[in-house]
Amino acid sequence: MAQQKKRVEDITSMDVDFAQWYTDVVKKAELADYSSVKGCMVYEPYGYAIWENIQREMDTRFKKLGVQNVCMPLLIPEGLLQKEKDHIDGFAPECAVVTQGGGEELSEKLYIRPTSEVLFCEHYQKKIHSYRDLPKLYNQWCSVLRWEKTTRPFLRGMEFLWQEGHTMHETAEEAQEFTLKMLRVYEEVYRDALAIPPVVGKKTEKEKFAGAEATYTLEPMMHNGVALQGGTTHYFGDGFAKAFGITFTGRDNQLHTPLQTSWGMSTRLVGAVIMVHGDDNGLVLPPRIAPVQVVIVPIAQHKPGVLEKAAELRDRLSEKFRVKLDDSDNSPGWKFAQYEMQGVPLRIEIGPKDIENGQCMLARRDNGDKWPAPLEDLENTITAVLDVIHDSMLHKAQENMDQKTHVAHDHEEFLDIAKNKPGFIKAMWCGDSACEDKLKEETGGVKSRCIPFEEEHISDVCACCGKPAKHMLYWGRQY
Amino acid sequence: MAQQKKRVEDITSMDVDFAQWYTDVVKKAELADYSSVKGCMVYEPYGYAIWENIQREMDTRFKKLGVQNVCMPLLIPEGLLQKEKDHIDGFAPECAVVTQGGGEELSEKLYIRPTSEVLFCEHYQKKIHSYRDLPKLYNQWCSVLRWEKTTRPFLRGMEFLWQEGHTMHETAEEAQEFTLKMLRVYEEVYRDALAIPPVVGKKTEKEKFAGAEATYTLEPMMHNGVALQGGTTHYFGDGFAKAFGITFTGRDNQLHTPLQTSWGMSTRLVGAVIMVHGDDNGLVLPPRIAPVQVVIVPIAQHKPGVLEKAAELRDRLSEKFRVKLDDSDNSPGWKFAQYEMQGVPLRIEIGPKDIENGQCMLARRDNGDKWPAPLEDLENTITAVLDVIHDSMLHKAQENMDQKTHVAHDHEEFLDIAKNKPGFIKAMWCGDSACEDKLKEETGGVKSRCIPFEEEHISDVCACCGKPAKHMLYWGRQY
Repeated sequence: MAQQKKRVEDITSMDVDFAQWYTDVVKKAELADYSSVKGCMVYEPYGYAIWENIQREMDTRFKKLGVQNVCMPLLIPEGLLQKEKDHIDGFAPECAVVTQGGGEELSEKLYIRPTSEVLFCEHYQKKIHSYRDLPKLYNQWCSVLRWEKTTRPFLRGMEFLWQEGHTMHETAEEAQEFTLKMLRVYEEVYRDALAIPPVVGKKTEKEKFAGAEATYTLEPMMHNGVALQGGTTHYFGDGFAKAFGITFTGRDNQLHTPLQTSWGMSTRLVGAVIMVHGDDNGLVLPPRIAPVQVVIVPIAQHKPGVLEKAAELRDRLSEKFRVKLDDSDNSPGWKFAQYEMQGVPLRIEIGPKDIENGQCMLARRDNGDKWPAPLEDLENTITAVLDVIHDSMLHKAQENMDQKTHVAHDHEEFLDIAKNKPGFIKAMWCGDSACEDKLKEETGGVKSRCIPFEEEHISDVCACCGKPAKHMLYWGRQY
Repeated sequence: MAQQKKRVEDITSMDVDFAQWYTDVVKKAELADYSSVKGCMVYEPYGYAIWENIQREMDTRFKKLGVQNVCMPLLIPEGLLQKEKDHIDGFAPECAVVTQGGGEELSEKLYIRPTSEVLFCEHYQKKIHSYRDLPKLYNQWCSVLRWEKTTRPFLRGMEFLWQEGHTMHETAEEAQEFTLKMLRVYEEVYRDALAIPPVVGKKTEKEKFAGAEATYTLEPMMHNGVALQGGTTHYFGDGFAKAFGITFTGRDNQLHTPLQTSWGMSTRLVGAVIMVHGDDNGLVLPPRIAPVQVVIVPIAQHKPGVLEKAAELRDRLSEKFRVKLDDSDNSPGWKFAQYEMQGVPLRIEIGPKDIENGQCMLARRDNGDKWPAPLEDLENTITAVLDVIHDSMLHKAQENMDQKTHVAHDHEEFLDIAKNKPGFIKAMWCGDSACEDKLKEETGGVKSRCIPFEEEHISDVCACCGKPAKHMLYWGRQY
């Protein structure tokens, strides 16, 4: 039985203004707040708890692959940053720079890390001597800073939280394989933890990371059809390793240069969760990363035995789930709206009549279904229901993406879709970056997202220039 | 049967040079490395894994008390830092200052956080309106930076990792109680996770945190008798709250100012673990925070079935413990020395004869005991042995502290002990900070550690000036 949906006050409707809806949800659910530091935000408890759960899902998977966590310094001396030319050119203009310390002017500027390639390379240079020291599979959880005056919570800001993995390998094959392995791990996190189906593939030459030989990307589609670049893995070849003089004695007793990868995902994932799953009543959180998976709302809680039974149920369920009992003196109606807005996947209602019947009411956040369930064996029921909610959310997100993915056979059709239909465009491409530039300009911002691993054959020619096609590309606007 | 201890090469003996022993252990066990950023270190995988395990022990306990994690910005605008006068006076001289960003000179300097009181207060000012908003129990895991050119891994450095809790309460009683509650949580982490018995008590007026009304401290004794200030909790009263204009409407419908606490522990705890438990063979890690709790070393691993059985054992034990199997082609003797140096609490040796007899050999790192154990039910055996190791390490650390804690009845005895016996001194004190200054100067660095909660009566008069005594103090040198 589907519950009638009421719009929550203070939250703008998605269809009216998606950007304002996003801001309202972030504020109302107390996920993040602005600070007096322009471009920096405060991650509030509920928002940070989502990130902690995502971290755990990622970190567990990293460790199973033998990845080890480390922590590098926050500051990079100017001389070190300059060692790789593309790198300093790309990052220096967007860095925050420390010029004073301990009350004195510094003789060498220190950059707050925008990313830590050079710090990892400096360390690896000291630690890698023989093929026996390889592979090195290091990861770091930290914040990085890139100068930016506007803040869009979780999506754009000066400082953001992320993980950055940096690995060194004996052979190019092994490094390339690892780059793809991490891409698969990221995809698994998207699908199995966040209930989000991303488009996955390789970036074009134009869109790849400066200095990388190949960049792979994960691009989930937000509810409004816009893409979020939400995770990349890079194969670096030996560019950095050569710049830093990293060598090792191989099995053949000769000196070799190791091959490098890097890969990162950030708090943008929280933004993706909000924008893929949310609705006009607020957040809808996937069960595996929801800070509260089950909220218990007592009905007629002033009646004898209700709060005791509700507390007993909380204690019992807390052994297996993240549970909250709201026994405040707010009305049940207020509580329903509150936890809907916070996106708690499952609500339990329990009142005098339920207790008499040895049951409770369950209500799903994602689709509003509500039904009675026996208290006996409730753990197994909840486990099953949370899995169903996850699968159902993944399916719904996939449907939205399918509906908003359009095929363009030629130039005219491409421009027509770009103008009139939000979402992704699948179209053929000749391989020339000039066509990427042209389509971006003509459409006011539609860019190539990636070359998927399984390309479809849509036509024989490029949807821009009409020359013979080399690849099928996904195209779309982005955050 | 106690195993004969061999000194490990490359590690200076503790008795010869404790400081060099410490540096050697950190380097040889690959816990941390120096970086090209003066004053900053690299936390290597093995050292960082110890910190992650300590974090988990702490974070789990925090969350049980209802503490919520958040993340505040890295940078503090100068104007914000200036809001509390003692605070800016205390910290500004030791800050790193950002004066350039995005390629331009900034109009307002940004300080890299040396601690985050002002950021929490700014946020609380926006969030606290009513007694219903209290208490706020926030914590942050992050790194902070205080200008310092020398690095002593884990003990002293420009950047270090820590947690900082900042809470706001409705009444002074509640805040004071919470300050002591967190002190007890810290003590529990010391005893139950690190197997370290700290001296716990209140700091004197002279030694308390600038701006705090009361500071409590945990002071474990290192093996050489020197104290480590290894955790503090502060009761702030309403000083910061007033400076930031934080008020709330109370139950009486009047405006009130909330009462504040803060509390922090850092990666110094890793230093404490090294210096309390280590020996001339390297690290000795307490089982509950050891990255590897059990290492399996196959004997005669070329013989058929040995490696298979060892791998089977690893898979089986990994369900319950953090296990490593070393099946490299190094000799068993090399492996024994390696994992002793890394402080792995328990070693399992398994060879053809053991397999035949359905047993393995167990060897304890902390005392060298070695004995055969049946493979059947090995999980329970290991669980019990790890607990015994923990208790035994705690006991040994307590014994060391007891042996190196001396009673001084008068001034002469105090000076004699300070000169000739490393360790803590228990002595009476009049309550005047002039006596603290005098004793520190006369002894070249012996400072008051704390007033313990259970004071003994050693004499009627101050061990410095001879005036009537108010308290018994612990005294000692410190890192």
